Amino acid sequence: MTSPQDTERVEGSGPSRRRLLAGAGLVGVLGTGALAGGLAGYSAQPEGAAGAVLGDQRIPFYGTHQAGITTPAQDRLAFGTLNVVSGATAADLRDLLRDWTTAAARMTAGQLVGEETEPQAPPVDTGEAAGSPVSRLTVTVGYGPALFDHRFGLAARQPSALADLPPLPNENLDPDYTGGDLAIQACSDNPLAAFHAVRNLARIGMGVVAHNWMELGFGRTSTTSTAQATPRNLLGFKDGTRNIKAEQTELLNRHVWVGQETDQPWLRGGSYMVTRKIRMFVENWDRDYLADQENVIGRAKVSGAPLSGGAEFSTPDFTKAGGDGQPAIPADAHIRLASPEHNGGIHILRRGYSFTDGIDPQAGTLLGGLFFIAFMKNPSQFVKLQTALAGDALNEYIHHTGSATFAVPPGLRPGQHYGDALFS
Amino acid sequence: MTSPQDTERVEGSGPSRRRLLAGAGLVGVLGTGALAGGLAGYSAQPEGAAGAVLGDQRIPFYGTHQAGITTPAQDRLAFGTLNVVSGATAADLRDLLRDWTTAAARMTAGQLVGEETEPQAPPVDTGEAAGSPVSRLTVTVGYGPALFDHRFGLAARQPSALADLPPLPNENLDPDYTGGDLAIQACSDNPLAAFHAVRNLARIGMGVVAHNWMELGFGRTSTTSTAQATPRNLLGFKDGTRNIKAEQTELLNRHVWVGQETDQPWLRGGSYMVTRKIRMFVENWDRDYLADQENVIGRAKVSGAPLSGGAEFSTPDFTKAGGDGQPAIPADAHIRLASPEHNGGIHILRRGYSFTDGIDPQAGTLLGGLFFIAFMKNPSQFVKLQTALAGDALNEYIHHTGSATFAVPPGLRPGQHYGDALFS
Repeated sequence: MTSPQDTERVEGSGPSRRRLLAGAGLVGVLGTGALAGGLAGYSAQPEGAAGAVLGDQRIPFYGTHQAGITTPAQDRLAFGTLNVVSGATAADLRDLLRDWTTAAARMTAGQLVGEETEPQAPPVDTGEAAGSPVSRLTVTVGYGPALFDHRFGLAARQPSALADLPPLPNENLDPDYTGGDLAIQACSDNPLAAFHAVRNLARIGMGVVAHNWMELGFGRTSTTSTAQATPRNLLGFKDGTRNIKAEQTELLNRHVWVGQETDQPWLRGGSYMVTRKIRMFVENWDRDYLADQENVIGRAKVSGAPLSGGAEFSTPDFTKAGGDGQPAIPADAHIRLASPEHNGGIHILRRGYSFTDGIDPQAGTLLGGLFFIAFMKNPSQFVKLQTALAGDALNEYIHHTGSATFAVPPGLRPGQHYGDALFS
Repeated sequence: MTSPQDTERVEGSGPSRRRLLAGAGLVGVLGTGALAGGLAGYSAQPEGAAGAVLGDQRIPFYGTHQAGITTPAQDRLAFGTLNVVSGATAADLRDLLRDWTTAAARMTAGQLVGEETEPQAPPVDTGEAAGSPVSRLTVTVGYGPALFDHRFGLAARQPSALADLPPLPNENLDPDYTGGDLAIQACSDNPLAAFHAVRNLARIGMGVVAHNWMELGFGRTSTTSTAQATPRNLLGFKDGTRNIKAEQTELLNRHVWVGQETDQPWLRGGSYMVTRKIRMFVENWDRDYLADQENVIGRAKVSGAPLSGGAEFSTPDFTKAGGDGQPAIPADAHIRLASPEHNGGIHILRRGYSFTDGIDPQAGTLLGGLFFIAFMKNPSQFVKLQTALAGDALNEYIHHTGSATFAVPPGLRPGQHYGDALFS
């Protein structure tokens, strides 16, 4: 057996990273269905009365935009950021991005990273998701501001809009959940498929990149399609009712997709992704009265209707007065301060997930909340919105503890690879 | 709005914990289907092409044994331990256990903890799972050894077999993931339903119990029914092939259910639960050759067949020699040392889940592995097995970092409550 102490031998005599992808029949026929559909011996798990039936639908990897942005939000998330390790070169990074493309195309098509053919080599795929359904897996890759520093000759390619966010209200950032050279957002209705994607892309990058931070999301808090019902966040409220939907192409073009306005042509058709780890102090929230909670949010808890009346999807009437003469939707209600009406018409596309890191061992309170992800044409949209939320009544119950921003390149055609346009 | 600083006022003038359950029409007709089936206004989420279709099957709450032991293993886990807070009395604890019974019966039947009827009171249910399917939710409650100390007059009720585990090989326990007065195992194919159950039981207990630690499991690593396929753990191997199955009633009676042998009649028909948080050093494992990995486990990675030949469910032949004259299943292979054949015929019922806590910020390595849960007639079964694993080749790649043991009382009939037998 190879021990951890034998690392040098393995790295010296073992297969290179490129072999892992290239030597194992990568260009094989795509499998049908579950992960490992193309791998003899690995069989899909039939379930039925004794278990869940997760779908094996696949989302096309290639397209005008990367998948995982307007794709109807999958139920589960694995999100990882990675940093390029000291000593890795621009060529290493570019090779890695090409390898990631191949691996992501395979995995989202329901295949393993490669086939297991050599006993005297490390396995090509980590294997934990073999036989488990792909369930609409998408992989979305982004580049952090730090990637454009002196290391890889990319300084002239940095979009002027791509920078770490300025200090914002109600944040106390943990450096362990901040930034990253590269981001991988993997979404699937099957959390194992999402985890497997991040894990294998990180593994393929061994020696070039290392994990920076990672978070799993166990329940979506946004809907990005009119075909989906609105889920609830850990405050128990419907979240994302007024989110941009995939069907609203005009809003997407105006607020989400990078267009001619960018100074970096390689980013056109892409987007910017802002992630914020938002802790919710649920034990305090639990003690608040139902009517108070509804005033904080500006919506009825059960129905999701705005407090100005109607049903969930009724447009909030911010001018309407309640029985006491005060605004029906309070002046400091979350939906008022976050609304396009109060922010010059700004929209962003949210794609968040509930998370938990367990229990604070000192306080005995839940370390959990919302892992906020949003896509937008320019990160200044988020800065403007978050600044407007300085007086949000909700701030008493939440705190931003992590933050990162990434440029998300456009989609690929078959034969193209992540990084081609960036490095060309 | 009620601020966190107003806690005293809320606790003073607000509804008591008992009202939360008792005052809101608890004994209503059970809903059909999704959580909140009984709550007007909360609607189930219809999904289709745009999302996963999770089942809304319900597992009976009442029965000879608690659900969640031989129930075909659900895909997702939320596991919480809680400690009784200083000052809480035996009566508080007993009341809490009764309230938990009512709430667990409701939630596993697809209902919220209670209906939202009073605007000037905290909501009865935290609400995050409203409209999300119950998906075979089970709640399984256990009592830790510490519960039987001087605090609640239960010393004479402590089963002689219930104690913290002795020091065992290959462990380095983190006190933040060790022990607990009470345990709640919530399993569902829907992680939101599982999380919601632990969260709401903890909330109902506010003032009597506080969170100790909590872990989510994102993929099952055991099968407990012959109707289920064997899943894979984060090492990429099928796990639990030789696990006891629900259909093997004779093995269950011999190895899992507490019988006449116990010195505590209240525990008959129950079981003991041992949990171990097992970190896997996946980056080291990744570098190991496929053939070496298979020798460590004793099985073929793709098929799961023992190295002595056959298919996944072939009985391992530990006497068979390989081509080199050495045992086909090596002397230090995991499945050899853990086998009933090498441990006096001992079986345990495993019910583990893959977990991750993210990334070690110093090392850049994955903090993840197996959250091991097993049920057995006597914790000495686990002690014997884990002691036999001192020479396990797998120990190079794993480390036990958390540990807890609980007595799991038997199932309930309608009208009975957790704790009735313990306190009677």
